[in-house]
Amino acid sequence: MAEKIVGIDLGGTMVKIGIVNSNGEIVKKDEIATKLELGFQKVVERICEKIKEMVELKDVKAVGIGSPGSIDHDKGIIEFSPNFPGWNNVPLKDEVEKYLNVPVFIENDANSAALGEKWFGEGKNKDHIVVLTLGTGIGGGVITHGKLLTGGNGIGAELGHMIVDPHGPVCGCGNYGCLEAMASATALIRYANEGRKRFPESMIFEFERQREVLGAREIFDAYRSNDKLAIRIFDTFVEAMSVGITSIIHIFNPQMVILGGGMSKSADLFIPKITEKVNMRVIPSFMGTFKIVGSKLGNDAGILGAAAIALENL
Amino acid sequence: MAEKIVGIDLGGTMVKIGIVNSNGEIVKKDEIATKLELGFQKVVERICEKIKEMVELKDVKAVGIGSPGSIDHDKGIIEFSPNFPGWNNVPLKDEVEKYLNVPVFIENDANSAALGEKWFGEGKNKDHIVVLTLGTGIGGGVITHGKLLTGGNGIGAELGHMIVDPHGPVCGCGNYGCLEAMASATALIRYANEGRKRFPESMIFEFERQREVLGAREIFDAYRSNDKLAIRIFDTFVEAMSVGITSIIHIFNPQMVILGGGMSKSADLFIPKITEKVNMRVIPSFMGTFKIVGSKLGNDAGILGAAAIALENL
Repeated sequence: MAEKIVGIDLGGTMVKIGIVNSNGEIVKKDEIATKLELGFQKVVERICEKIKEMVELKDVKAVGIGSPGSIDHDKGIIEFSPNFPGWNNVPLKDEVEKYLNVPVFIENDANSAALGEKWFGEGKNKDHIVVLTLGTGIGGGVITHGKLLTGGNGIGAELGHMIVDPHGPVCGCGNYGCLEAMASATALIRYANEGRKRFPESMIFEFERQREVLGAREIFDAYRSNDKLAIRIFDTFVEAMSVGITSIIHIFNPQMVILGGGMSKSADLFIPKITEKVNMRVIPSFMGTFKIVGSKLGNDAGILGAAAIALENL
Repeated sequence: MAEKIVGIDLGGTMVKIGIVNSNGEIVKKDEIATKLELGFQKVVERICEKIKEMVELKDVKAVGIGSPGSIDHDKGIIEFSPNFPGWNNVPLKDEVEKYLNVPVFIENDANSAALGEKWFGEGKNKDHIVVLTLGTGIGGGVITHGKLLTGGNGIGAELGHMIVDPHGPVCGCGNYGCLEAMASATALIRYANEGRKRFPESMIFEFERQREVLGAREIFDAYRSNDKLAIRIFDTFVEAMSVGITSIIHIFNPQMVILGGGMSKSADLFIPKITEKVNMRVIPSFMGTFKIVGSKLGNDAGILGAAAIALENL
């Protein structure tokens, strides 16, 4: 009996592919370069060939694909994604189904993260969870009353574009003070660069020189050593997150708020601070109704989320 | 065949009761004083006796009750309500069912407003609507994917306690910058009183003297005459509402945001301004996906919302 699920974490640079068994374990995983330059058809072909190498198709029950961008889940198309320039309204579901002859389901990566937590992660056996993926941007995924919230046009749950401070900096979306503009890795890096002149001796820039990269990790590492600029940035981050999460709690009354994405590697550092601030803000009747936790899915989050898309739809 | 629905809009001062036929028309309505001082049992008895006067019980299919406060819908109890001092965990559903011997369903008044719009109002035939009730406080009700959002403990959709400006004034809930603290009638009255010394000649206070009351209506009326203080208050109100509604749109991707409650009588005045500001803020892909409208249910909103609770649960 076909019992295996293929989870595909589709990225602009790499595609991660995992084979998940009926116990929810990844029994095999691999990755290939996306090679966007080859064009949509060829990219799909390469992914499908890789899957055929990894698993016997007769054992595959369904394929789930998580993709960044604006996804029409019902039609199975990527409408538009900044990560895939030139892919407009590409029929991803149909093309993969044609190659593999198994059911294929697609969803955007933040919604995929929420489903991954529901099926395999911290949200197991919970009907009310909110996932924030903290990385270059901030994505949102909401499970409410057991179901994924996608909204009237399937473009909802954009929690990174809640306004947490109308006087805040401009966001990539053009609006002012979005959570993403104040708490994403991009925002933290911007704060660091803005502080470069005033705090040239900050350890942030020492790490930058050593590692030849400036990311959220360098800022969090400097914070661990009580670096002044890092503390200022960290406090701004915690404040914005606590405002956003307070609103999320009042809106969704979730059992759990799960922080995922690349920045969640430092979750031990910021979750206690965020929780403390959220508890100072929430309406008393909400106290004790929620937990704020880091995702435990780690590097497999993308594959497991993608597999969960298929499981959710079967 | 029993086809009629009884809708009860339970308030701290008055109880409005309506009989709704299978076409969704109120065929009879009446109201009685709540007389809280008589105690819970007696209040229930008085309501039930009134219903018996108004309709033959054999024609009644179900009763819906909308109540302010924290409601446990499943258990059918009012856990706590500032409007009913002393009523803690009162078994409203069971008591009314005992008297009338028909199915009874209860829900809080903001959720009731959302169901009223879904069944009888602007949200008819829509699966994604958000209702804000603008009055002394700001309540929220959300229909997403066709279902009422209540959250893990049934206390969600507190949209009045989204934070729209973390630097804003303190809210009744103790938090800073909630939508309710910046855009409810209570907030507008507070702004007026704060402006009394600086703008003693404002028409707001002229209306207050004439009408012996200071409410949102006096402020909106002064705004219609280009009163300076009223303009300042109005602009603050519009700004806070547009920030909150922008976040709501990004979160829920609703087809419609419906503004109800007492202040919606002035909806013609503020909806165009709010819409203009929201359109300046929302992510371009959300443009054109939503409408912001005033509730058309008027004074019957409470009764129709209560009837809708019953219809939703049958």
